[in-house]
Amino acid sequence: MTKPLASGEDSLIARYFRPIAIDPGALNLTDDAAILNASPDDLVVTTDAIVEGVHFLPDDPPDSIARKALRVNLSDLAAKGATPAGFVMTLALREASDAWLKPFARGLGEDATFFGCALLGGDTVSTPGPLMISITAFGRVPQGKMVHRHTARPGDRIVVTGTIGDAALGLDILKSGAAAAALGNDAAARQMLIERYRVPQPRVGLAKTVRDFASAAMDVSDGLAGDLAKLCAASGMSAVIDAKSIPLSPAAAALLTRGIAGIESIVSGGDDYEILCTIPESSLEAFADAARLAAVAVTSIGTVLAGSSVPRFLDDKGNEIALSRLSYSHF
Amino acid sequence: MTKPLASGEDSLIARYFRPIAIDPGALNLTDDAAILNASPDDLVVTTDAIVEGVHFLPDDPPDSIARKALRVNLSDLAAKGATPAGFVMTLALREASDAWLKPFARGLGEDATFFGCALLGGDTVSTPGPLMISITAFGRVPQGKMVHRHTARPGDRIVVTGTIGDAALGLDILKSGAAAAALGNDAAARQMLIERYRVPQPRVGLAKTVRDFASAAMDVSDGLAGDLAKLCAASGMSAVIDAKSIPLSPAAAALLTRGIAGIESIVSGGDDYEILCTIPESSLEAFADAARLAAVAVTSIGTVLAGSSVPRFLDDKGNEIALSRLSYSHF
Repeated sequence: MTKPLASGEDSLIARYFRPIAIDPGALNLTDDAAILNASPDDLVVTTDAIVEGVHFLPDDPPDSIARKALRVNLSDLAAKGATPAGFVMTLALREASDAWLKPFARGLGEDATFFGCALLGGDTVSTPGPLMISITAFGRVPQGKMVHRHTARPGDRIVVTGTIGDAALGLDILKSGAAAAALGNDAAARQMLIERYRVPQPRVGLAKTVRDFASAAMDVSDGLAGDLAKLCAASGMSAVIDAKSIPLSPAAAALLTRGIAGIESIVSGGDDYEILCTIPESSLEAFADAARLAAVAVTSIGTVLAGSSVPRFLDDKGNEIALSRLSYSHF
Repeated sequence: MTKPLASGEDSLIARYFRPIAIDPGALNLTDDAAILNASPDDLVVTTDAIVEGVHFLPDDPPDSIARKALRVNLSDLAAKGATPAGFVMTLALREASDAWLKPFARGLGEDATFFGCALLGGDTVSTPGPLMISITAFGRVPQGKMVHRHTARPGDRIVVTGTIGDAALGLDILKSGAAAAALGNDAAARQMLIERYRVPQPRVGLAKTVRDFASAAMDVSDGLAGDLAKLCAASGMSAVIDAKSIPLSPAAAALLTRGIAGIESIVSGGDDYEILCTIPESSLEAFADAARLAAVAVTSIGTVLAGSSVPRFLDDKGNEIALSRLSYSHF
């Protein structure tokens, strides 16, 4: 018999994903499972899916979709203080198109190598619906050292990495919203904001620093206000934020100043993929020094307070800013 | 402020999934990640997704959809000789309906408890497309002891658990195919075959026996013929199968005898979720004894041969059965 051995799914995997699955534990993607070797470390496991039309747009470049799918998970690992150890992926596709899969696999492979997080396995299924990429990523921390959400203490300083609100503005531009019109010919600003939406920058380099200094941490994915509220609720705490100290990119700051973007869209927009963490006052300087060495910008924006009320965002004059929504919700 | 803290997604998780996420490593589903504790064992990782309209039907009972989603992964772990250690799940839903989510979570929780495989975390996303459940499951094996696909040797006996072909016939009945008409009033047979499609029986109890005796193993999910061809190709081997010895349920055997079902639909139908393994001749008796203790039926159906041709299925008279397709393919 000369029947072809490889089914469509198998040859798709062989063509696009085997070349990037270079970790021995991936077994060349020719087995039913992958192996994560025994280790003295705890394994941190996180799962995040991105869906076409919800987390990315149908005409986003395939390589940036792949990068986003992996990076949203790497962002979670970094916030937990974990070093990447590998990932598995479920890919739901309408069709196996070379024009889409080739750049997708290239982007995925480049990021896997860059961030030291190897493709270990996965499943590829057909769907008549939107594309969906679900990734489960693994990280390692010394035993008992994962950084939790529920451990913030009164008086801890609240710190975020990078800048907040860019991705939401980038999405607004892609949807031809107010920011698009306002930025007019400023191609550089438009491109920067769009890139922030399409390709998050997971703060993998800050993982050890978070582990060493943070009392609690999570990544900002659904909006700073909502995610801070979750961290505070888990910790049985409240918080106060000085809105003016929230780090903004020059483009976002300009849109805010001109009244094109409101503070609400900045703090509840989502897709930031920055780290939000709480640092005991006594460690703040050492934390900032370590972050500088890791070349990750960190900004103190407020303080954890005893109490159970939703975190308050204060304006220049110390008045509370009313937020009608805290974050993006799927349902 | 008295804004509700929980977003729709959070309250959905709290209502349906927190009650079944009883493992300490799940952190009550209130953190960004789960913890799998350090262990002297290797961790085996497998990912399988099921899609509405592809792997299950829109009107399948929600609890059976949940069970199938978990069990197809447990079947992989068992075939690799691994003991379940937990799972994470991505759930893509069109809407958060209580009537669907309540039985779904109940079925999932019951199976998680029954099979000792705890829900550790996950992601819930909205989709305008078909429902999809992607599960990544973890199992443990002593270091270096995962059973591979690529290690079958010439002369090894080829063994399958349970019966083959029932699920494909069950799907045929649900689609009002020939089997539905032929079984007429035999409600028990119809129901048995439908159940075999909807709720696989992962051979978790056989994991240690497979680890102790099998030279190679995988689960039969896409059809016996195609999956055996994959195992042989990975091992650089060929095989011969005595088609008459393939274990059939009474219902499937009757449909085959009456000519309603062909042998091809039995061996290439998919959804069996039985274990296919190769056992060195010298261990066959000890393997069969251990399987008996584990109360899992095992049947020897053929022999691994040196060579690279696709496995041959022989009829009563020793003539090769021509198979026009080996298995289900998504693309």
